[in-house]
Amino acid sequence: MNYPSKLVEDAVNEISRLPGIGKKSALRLALHLLKSEKSVTHNLTMAITDLVEKTTFCKVCHNISDTEICRICDSVKRDDSILAIVQDTKDVLAIENTAQYQGKYHVLGGVISPIQGIGPSDLQIDSLVERIRHNDAIKEIIIALSPTMEGDTTAFYIKKKLKEFNLKISTIARGIPIGGDLEYTDEITLGRSILSRIEF
Amino acid sequence: MNYPSKLVEDAVNEISRLPGIGKKSALRLALHLLKSEKSVTHNLTMAITDLVEKTTFCKVCHNISDTEICRICDSVKRDDSILAIVQDTKDVLAIENTAQYQGKYHVLGGVISPIQGIGPSDLQIDSLVERIRHNDAIKEIIIALSPTMEGDTTAFYIKKKLKEFNLKISTIARGIPIGGDLEYTDEITLGRSILSRIEF
Repeated sequence: MNYPSKLVEDAVNEISRLPGIGKKSALRLALHLLKSEKSVTHNLTMAITDLVEKTTFCKVCHNISDTEICRICDSVKRDDSILAIVQDTKDVLAIENTAQYQGKYHVLGGVISPIQGIGPSDLQIDSLVERIRHNDAIKEIIIALSPTMEGDTTAFYIKKKLKEFNLKISTIARGIPIGGDLEYTDEITLGRSILSRIEF
Repeated sequence: MNYPSKLVEDAVNEISRLPGIGKKSALRLALHLLKSEKSVTHNLTMAITDLVEKTTFCKVCHNISDTEICRICDSVKRDDSILAIVQDTKDVLAIENTAQYQGKYHVLGGVISPIQGIGPSDLQIDSLVERIRHNDAIKEIIIALSPTMEGDTTAFYIKKKLKEFNLKISTIARGIPIGGDLEYTDEITLGRSILSRIEF
């Protein structure tokens, strides 16, 4: 495209590097910022810079945190005996929003994916084992990973790694979503939900 | 939502101020930036800051420009006798991409919209009149505004303002889009395309 200005072109190129934003959307955003008050752009760039420069990860659960120990790990109201193992921060937020879970978390930072070159050593799995070894309070593990090939592989790997401890290990239930329609459920989900039927 | 960190919350709030980006997308973008190399974020924020701090507008056509006079106004290859009047930079880009237009532009910076409180004095209409008054080369005006209520109002206003000059004034053709289907064309467009039928 024949941009009116090198500055616009540079901005469009940088903005369109973000996931899910193409050149057209990037141009729309760039022109929006040009029309806005300068303070809007200043606040935006400062917030992004601060985010990347100052954010740290909790030393215990490896979730994103402003402090050395995150709010959840630091809370006395949370149940120390249960640990939910999740892929990343988005999943912590999703579970927190259900208000159904009062335990603590362990954030892996990804799942095992040979295609993307992510192995167990790239994830917070060794630190999980050490965490459980040094904390007798932990009695139960909920593996809350997505039911994909990578999620399942990671779950199996973690299960194997935790064999030496006397823990109750579960995964979150898979089945037909609440409000879902049998007719439109894919056959794998429906088949599994019959195999793992629950007594009524 | 219960963000894991104040920094994430701030970044999500600022990013979600952008048009078309909600809180969920903003969180996805924030977490993406956190995972990326720091240089990605640095380049992004620098490009945005430069864009807003350094971009100026062409003194002649009011399009976005790096220089006092933009590339198109400065070009000797462009036809000085025709002026296309457009709403904003996006429209200049759209017309340039067709490669069908060799004239010059005048960018209004918006259209008359009483609802949004935009009147003729907020737009580059007076400067258009002055530009035509001091440039005898201009013989033809193409009003290339969107066929909306606001676009039409602006077109009529401009036509009235330019009555004193001896100019050929046209608007871009409205009708059924090339490749469009009669059956699915809205009745106003179809009705108008019959009224303003072209000899074959």
